[in-house]
Amino acid sequence: MWAVCLDLESVLIPEIWQVLAKKLKINELKLTTREIPDFDLLMKRRLDVLLTNNLKIQDLQKIVKKIKPLNGALSFLNWVRENFLTVISSDTFFEFWKVLGKRLNYPVVFCNSFEIDKKGFIRGYKIRKKNGKLATVKALKFLGYKVIAIGDSYNDIAMLRAADVGILFKPPKKMKKEFPQFRSVSNYRELRSILEKYIS
Amino acid sequence: MWAVCLDLESVLIPEIWQVLAKKLKINELKLTTREIPDFDLLMKRRLDVLLTNNLKIQDLQKIVKKIKPLNGALSFLNWVRENFLTVISSDTFFEFWKVLGKRLNYPVVFCNSFEIDKKGFIRGYKIRKKNGKLATVKALKFLGYKVIAIGDSYNDIAMLRAADVGILFKPPKKMKKEFPQFRSVSNYRELRSILEKYIS
Repeated sequence: MWAVCLDLESVLIPEIWQVLAKKLKINELKLTTREIPDFDLLMKRRLDVLLTNNLKIQDLQKIVKKIKPLNGALSFLNWVRENFLTVISSDTFFEFWKVLGKRLNYPVVFCNSFEIDKKGFIRGYKIRKKNGKLATVKALKFLGYKVIAIGDSYNDIAMLRAADVGILFKPPKKMKKEFPQFRSVSNYRELRSILEKYIS
Repeated sequence: MWAVCLDLESVLIPEIWQVLAKKLKINELKLTTREIPDFDLLMKRRLDVLLTNNLKIQDLQKIVKKIKPLNGALSFLNWVRENFLTVISSDTFFEFWKVLGKRLNYPVVFCNSFEIDKKGFIRGYKIRKKNGKLATVKALKFLGYKVIAIGDSYNDIAMLRAADVGILFKPPKKMKKEFPQFRSVSNYRELRSILEKYIS
């Protein structure tokens, strides 16, 4: 039996921190691992910015709640869930996902979580599992599945490598060149036509 | 972070083979592991009965498709999915689940599968993972979750034991006595009030 393991941001929904930066008009929140490769450093910076601006989790959730799936993402995802054991593995935080899940019809999302104080300020974050995306593929294989993993960026590569089939979804040109071993698709239609071959 | 791992039949939907037996008016299909404790023997018997009666997977799917969730199951499950990483671990077969999933809004169900020939006759079955329910709890723990497992019968006990919290849902009186270490609940309201304490 085949399982499908998907990345969330940029594959099914927009990048959450980019949306927050735009809506809150805080340019510093636009920084990504491209600018600050050390994820812990990046997250500390983001949380500092939130505190400096007196922003609570509820303020962020109000914005995140309104994020719409990418065009075509919902019907694509519905189709995948009808045909495969489907999970999403993401570096995002459960407190964001909690208000966003409804938009995608509550698929299973393995993600991290924030540490929030009584007033609602985010004081830290908790990585549920180191290399969580890779671990998700390992867990699915342990459970007897063959795995198709789909992602778009460098933090998905370990997951794609561990899977039986790795697919890049709309990757930057540079990545496409760097990882010729993975099929690369530019839309849901192409992706679906690949997946169709694995329906048992 | 807490994950919830649920049994499917008798917890969220009726026992599928019982429904099939009733609708097809084939008494032999009523047999369960209570009468034939060896699961492989039981399944071979069931598949023999299906072949003898010239029944194809499509005939069964027509019936399974119409199975309704137990009273209150859907709203209970929706609530669990909003608040926890939620998975279902079942001994049922993907070919049944495929037509039934919609009724429960497609939660993730780890289950087994049939071997079906070109004409649609079920020639065998494939256990995806031995002790699959126990393995699901192990996989969730590997992924960094604390686990609440919920089941109603003997084949759920290994899963309940492996979990951080094990709960029996409407178990037979005998089981309740035999496993006093597990909380026992008799409806979704009670179950929800226990789960509420674990929402982070």
